Amino acid sequence: MKHHVKKIKYQTKKFIDFIDITEDAATFAKENNITNGFLTVFINHTTAAIRINEREKGITKDFELFAKQLVPSDKYYQHNDLTIRTENLVCEPGASDCLNAHSHILHLLMGGTSEHTPIIEGKLALGTFQRIFLIELDCARPRIVTFQIIGE
Amino acid sequence: MKHHVKKIKYQTKKFIDFIDITEDAATFAKENNITNGFLTVFINHTTAAIRINEREKGITKDFELFAKQLVPSDKYYQHNDLTIRTENLVCEPGASDCLNAHSHILHLLMGGTSEHTPIIEGKLALGTFQRIFLIELDCARPRIVTFQIIGE
Amino acid sequence: MKHHVKKIKYQTKKFIDFIDITEDAATFAKENNITNGFLTVFINHTTAAIRINEREKGITKDFELFAKQLVPSDKYYQHNDLTIRTENLVCEPGASDCLNAHSHILHLLMGGTSEHTPIIEGKLALGTFQRIFLIELDCARPRIVTFQIIGE
Repeated sequence: MKHHVKKIKYQTKKFIDFIDITEDAATFAKENNITNGFLTVFINHTTAAIRINEREKGITKDFELFAKQLVPSDKYYQHNDLTIRTENLVCEPGASDCLNAHSHILHLLMGGTSEHTPIIEGKLALGTFQRIFLIELDCARPRIVTFQIIGE
Repeated sequence: MKHHVKKIKYQTKKFIDFIDITEDAATFAKENNITNGFLTVFINHTTAAIRINEREKGITKDFELFAKQLVPSDKYYQHNDLTIRTENLVCEPGASDCLNAHSHILHLLMGGTSEHTPIIEGKLALGTFQRIFLIELDCARPRIVTFQIIGE
Repeated sequence: MKHHVKKIKYQTKKFIDFIDITEDAATFAKENNITNGFLTVFINHTTAAIRINEREKGITKDFELFAKQLVPSDKYYQHNDLTIRTENLVCEPGASDCLNAHSHILHLLMGGTSEHTPIIEGKLALGTFQRIFLIELDCARPRIVTFQIIGE
């Protein structure tokens, strides 16, 4: 069994930006000559998700509207209340990247820290419409994704 | 470390059909004599989910009603609007299997492309009430599930 | 490739109790001298979740309020109706630990039976704010978490 790992940095553009990272995952599996094994796509952040779904513009837009309605960003949240918050204040007080309680709630609900795909006979075992996405749940941000393969 | 893979086809009957696939997973692990390792149950579709939960008829019905209320199928969705959609139109125009935006939203929310279970001393390490389900998020359809084991 | 497994028992205190189990996971990886591999954190229950997110009190409270509103515990659910239910009645009739339909719905929605983290150069490959939590979706209960490493 071999082990390979690679990190790739992406720049998201906005809330519910879907970035298709399927080709990066497939290339990583191919360049390491893995015949049979297991790919993990892991995001190193708590307000962005990895998700496998179909690539179609309507779905992206529908999910954006759904997410905004389910977890409105402009409600009162304790995480956004800088008069009471004391932890993890790495941003400037008042800066918008502290005020992302809706992003954390969506991420807690969705999960999506990682997705996993079998590699069979040298290929990612994805179905016809399955694509691997990085989905931004916060505002535009640089994001790091870790690709890991265990296989032979 | 050994690697084994198997695909099984299931036929779902309706929206939020729960198909218990635990025995198929356990049989697959047993027939390959894996003592210690890791089982992945991966679904090759974007509108059906793999989920571990309890097998009890009331839960299935409660979740069906909850899902219908959370993501109604009869709202306006861009994915269902064939006057504007141009991508992945593999079905006949107007056919119901194109009009499944609610299924995609549920899947994006739930995740559920795969579940993973340790195999310890030859058995799936499931708790007393844990069962592995294929859950249909669309209408009745044939579905392919990939079972993969890495272990020894 | 080596395989190691460990079970740890935790006692949760209430609905949406977040127990930070990151250090237990890191210690397990370290004490087995795994340089490169894959950690699985698997919960052996159907009404509690494993989730990676940020550790900040406001987020925990915000998510608790959100979850209570999204899936109220006091609605009518078939799972809680002991006049019709026949399966898995391991508790005393009327006991509160049978009446947890909201916990099952949340778990079906969130998933969270397991989280997975690459181990790279001897360390869990977690981002700056990523912590691994056991989240209680039911009332105060003892919970068993299985930690598994496959690596070298």
